[in-house]
Amino acid sequence: MPNEIRKDYILDRWVIIASERAKRPTDYSGRPSERTEAKTCPFCPGNERKTPPAVLLYLPSDGGIKRAKDSDGERVKNWLVRCIPNLYPALSPRNSISLVEDDLHRRSDGVGAHEVLIESPNHDEHPSNGRLEQIELVVQAYLDRLKGLSKWEYVSIFRNHGKEAGASLSHAHSQIMATPMVPERISDELAACRSWLEKKDACPYCEIIEAERSSPRFIFENESFIAFAPWASVYPFEFWLLPKKHQHTLLQLDERGKRDFSRALRMCFGSLATILNDPPYSYGFHIAPTRGQHECFHWHLEVYPKLSIQAGFENSTGMFINVTPPEVAAQSLRESLPRI
Amino acid sequence: MPNEIRKDYILDRWVIIASERAKRPTDYSGRPSERTEAKTCPFCPGNERKTPPAVLLYLPSDGGIKRAKDSDGERVKNWLVRCIPNLYPALSPRNSISLVEDDLHRRSDGVGAHEVLIESPNHDEHPSNGRLEQIELVVQAYLDRLKGLSKWEYVSIFRNHGKEAGASLSHAHSQIMATPMVPERISDELAACRSWLEKKDACPYCEIIEAERSSPRFIFENESFIAFAPWASVYPFEFWLLPKKHQHTLLQLDERGKRDFSRALRMCFGSLATILNDPPYSYGFHIAPTRGQHECFHWHLEVYPKLSIQAGFENSTGMFINVTPPEVAAQSLRESLPRI
Repeated sequence: MPNEIRKDYILDRWVIIASERAKRPTDYSGRPSERTEAKTCPFCPGNERKTPPAVLLYLPSDGGIKRAKDSDGERVKNWLVRCIPNLYPALSPRNSISLVEDDLHRRSDGVGAHEVLIESPNHDEHPSNGRLEQIELVVQAYLDRLKGLSKWEYVSIFRNHGKEAGASLSHAHSQIMATPMVPERISDELAACRSWLEKKDACPYCEIIEAERSSPRFIFENESFIAFAPWASVYPFEFWLLPKKHQHTLLQLDERGKRDFSRALRMCFGSLATILNDPPYSYGFHIAPTRGQHECFHWHLEVYPKLSIQAGFENSTGMFINVTPPEVAAQSLRESLPRI
Repeated sequence: MPNEIRKDYILDRWVIIASERAKRPTDYSGRPSERTEAKTCPFCPGNERKTPPAVLLYLPSDGGIKRAKDSDGERVKNWLVRCIPNLYPALSPRNSISLVEDDLHRRSDGVGAHEVLIESPNHDEHPSNGRLEQIELVVQAYLDRLKGLSKWEYVSIFRNHGKEAGASLSHAHSQIMATPMVPERISDELAACRSWLEKKDACPYCEIIEAERSSPRFIFENESFIAFAPWASVYPFEFWLLPKKHQHTLLQLDERGKRDFSRALRMCFGSLATILNDPPYSYGFHIAPTRGQHECFHWHLEVYPKLSIQAGFENSTGMFINVTPPEVAAQSLRESLPRI
């Protein structure tokens, strides 16, 4: 198949899909993601004093969990999930200051929040190998913090795995960043959803789900979720996870949805770790902004394995080159789903 | 200074400028950019047979240069600059084929061109350390290939330096990619220029030049060119080079302009290599599309040092975190300009 240039479903983003020299999983180095290790992991149980007081803790309780917080002077032990302010926050919740600006130099005060979600007391319990009930707790914590930070314009929930993907500590963790504006990517997707709704009286993501379900890009589905490699994948082995029912925010997940989402995570990341030997990757949620009416949005999770380098061409044009066609990626991911 | 969030001059792109823990040059690892070395460099003189026939060669000639090409069967020796088709092109100039597509799955045939410009017979003659007359030849070759590829919608000229910035060979080279569509970044910038022109009857870049010339982000200028660290720098030590006179394409450079541009490159890259120990970086030209009326555009070169990792937050939101404020970067770059 000759190389082709594909456009994202709804964004004006073009990706050169290099089918002529398609790289399969075995063409990648196969070295597992590199770990940066402190001598003592500050996220492991017993070292809670090395981190700020938790804003959210889950503790075991009869037949369920109990929510708690640290106080300044003490650190609660025996937690299942622990969410703390980032010790070096990019954005922080302080009193806003006003800044001088002009037409060309616009700026906003760096207020917001930046938190770290420690996903498990077990250093190495990741979505690729974790217990389902633990992954469910992580998903629940995402929901709790999304709710807790809803006074900000947007809440970005993301995960970096492996040093090459920006994880400075290897203990299983996600990050949460609340911003005082809606980020460009989200407002672009939202605008595209609005315009699709006006023109076709439909949600583009709902239509994408229907189309990809029976395409060679399909990877996995259960009752509530579907996973596929997107048509114009920017990254080799990129995949997306979407709720099959139209939902604009994670907060609409019911109990069944949370379970199905956790299972979908476990299945897809299990497969990714198998075929590429635990590669570095990032993921990020795309959720409707917290304020205003954004029911036309369809939330989803995008997963970006870090197997290639973006450089001069990509950074200066906004176009990309992907040497693993999504159909090749999806077939590998589909064929290595774990049996759990 | 507390962290702030800055918007690009004209694009809807926000960057968190982390002034609170600003990283200065000495905070970066200081390891020089990594080299990937083949046993025999295919770009070095004597190994021309390892590469396809050149589409453009500069040969020494009485008081100037002579242009030439390779034929299929032979390779011309004693070249000063050599431009060849990429052996593994992402896009290639063949007969276009038609592809099935629908509303959600749009694509275009992967036609275009992908060339490699070998910048010098000397393996290690880069913009940071090269002879001015050699850099002038490289700039002339950019112009010649831009002209030669003008049947395509856009011509992207870029350079990756160091393995971490995607350079698979360390011999000094640039790449040229001609695309059958205008890339998103360029059309966004063009749209912003058009709208600025309509509202203010001016070019935003001409106004930016005026403003940054006397700002703490200023780095270097000569008669025709200016270099500064942009207000909302995405990358630590990012800088831009712009012609001071309004020009929409590189093709408008006169002899003086070419000389001044070459000298500006040599000065700025010399400084970058000094303060960060020859770091990996990419650069990319932003030029008006080849077809149509785009006089409102102002061409420029953007330089992206590769000192940080873009991961989950950046990829999912289109926002960025830059831990070296442009004012800090500009001061270092300004203070280490070579004396040539």
